Amino acid sequence: MLERIRFVLCQTTHPGNIGAAARALKTMGLSRLMLVNPRHFPHEQATAMASGADDLLEQAVVCQSLSQALAGTTWVVGLTARFRDLSHPMASVREVVRQLPQQTGDGDIAFVFGTEMSGLSNAELDCCHYLAHIPTVEDFSSLNLAAAVQVVAYELRSGLLPVEVSAREYPLATHEEVEGFYGQLEEALLGSGFLDAKNPGRMMIRLRRLFSRSRLEKNEVNILRGMIRAFVEPYPPAGSEKGKP
Amino acid sequence: MLERIRFVLCQTTHPGNIGAAARALKTMGLSRLMLVNPRHFPHEQATAMASGADDLLEQAVVCQSLSQALAGTTWVVGLTARFRDLSHPMASVREVVRQLPQQTGDGDIAFVFGTEMSGLSNAELDCCHYLAHIPTVEDFSSLNLAAAVQVVAYELRSGLLPVEVSAREYPLATHEEVEGFYGQLEEALLGSGFLDAKNPGRMMIRLRRLFSRSRLEKNEVNILRGMIRAFVEPYPPAGSEKGKP
Repeated sequence: MLERIRFVLCQTTHPGNIGAAARALKTMGLSRLMLVNPRHFPHEQATAMASGADDLLEQAVVCQSLSQALAGTTWVVGLTARFRDLSHPMASVREVVRQLPQQTGDGDIAFVFGTEMSGLSNAELDCCHYLAHIPTVEDFSSLNLAAAVQVVAYELRSGLLPVEVSAREYPLATHEEVEGFYGQLEEALLGSGFLDAKNPGRMMIRLRRLFSRSRLEKNEVNILRGMIRAFVEPYPPAGSEKGKP
Repeated sequence: MLERIRFVLCQTTHPGNIGAAARALKTMGLSRLMLVNPRHFPHEQATAMASGADDLLEQAVVCQSLSQALAGTTWVVGLTARFRDLSHPMASVREVVRQLPQQTGDGDIAFVFGTEMSGLSNAELDCCHYLAHIPTVEDFSSLNLAAAVQVVAYELRSGLLPVEVSAREYPLATHEEVEGFYGQLEEALLGSGFLDAKNPGRMMIRLRRLFSRSRLEKNEVNILRGMIRAFVEPYPPAGSEKGKP
């Protein structure tokens, strides 16, 4: 579905924003950028801000009108920072993305962004089926254009692609490995006199809670057990082997 | 909770990114910006990109070290674009924000961002309890610094504040108002011969579905009913009153 999505920037004033938008799209696996009457394009500031997303700039389609940019779309979402005096249905970007699979039909989907200073004109809004807003504080609601593109692209990727599972680098210790460590620790603490066998109190519980919160890894359990062993049976001092037979 | 959150930018190279980050924070109701050894600050590019968030730049705290910036925090999250060779727990920004209320203790919370070119150093990572990543495509995973700040700030606001209900500008029509319209429409279509009373087919069902999808407003129902009335009993042609007694 990401391939069916176009980002349409209308009358963009600052070419740096076009470049930054291209970078934002590329990070999220989106690639279709349409520019309706950009003030300056191509432009060195666009290329500089694209920062490796030059391919998207090269493929960007420059259009003479919004209608031209929307040809072939079946679902058009306009981005707006404020409630507009129009009866468009409106929702947060997240909600719009959630509804996307049901709403869009078979054609392309467009997200339309107005000019930096004033957003979408009424004529541009008339081409939209739906309005999306990025929730903000009330009295400072205007994101930078490229920042808004980044948030929408991020929501599209997060909402439409299956969530990646964050793998941990190292395997976690099993229950019995951690219990083995606790047993060794308790024995060592009793042996050292730190714990009183007749009156152990809640010390082990507190220690268990501490380590439990950190979700110990296999390797870390080995390190901790090695440490305890070394406390209980200190290594012979360096050089002490020398004198022995 | 938003007031307890600090955004810490380490060794930022481009002052424009500091300004854009300030603007991003302000849109989301966040205000605490800490700068660890910024290359240029204050700077006119920072002010230009802040675009109304000058107050955040004025309040920004410049620090000599990350430790100084983290004093008073109980939970530190580092932003990273890639899996690191360290045993930090790691999750998506959205997941990190979801866990925030359980994890943070009573102190401040910091989100730490590395330098533009290479991200967080190992020494900086050592100060973090947790790593967060913004899900991206694999081979182009580096967001612009200010864009990353925008996404994290957006997730914090979306995740920690109750969802705002998007109010519609105009009141929706009630069931009976819409049914009144359908009744009038059907009668008019029968009267006009468009509908055959003996063989109406599924025309009304199709029309109902069409209007139902648009979720009619009170005002729109009045407009539609006025239109039908005008079709059935056309207004007298302009000037026709003149000749009447």
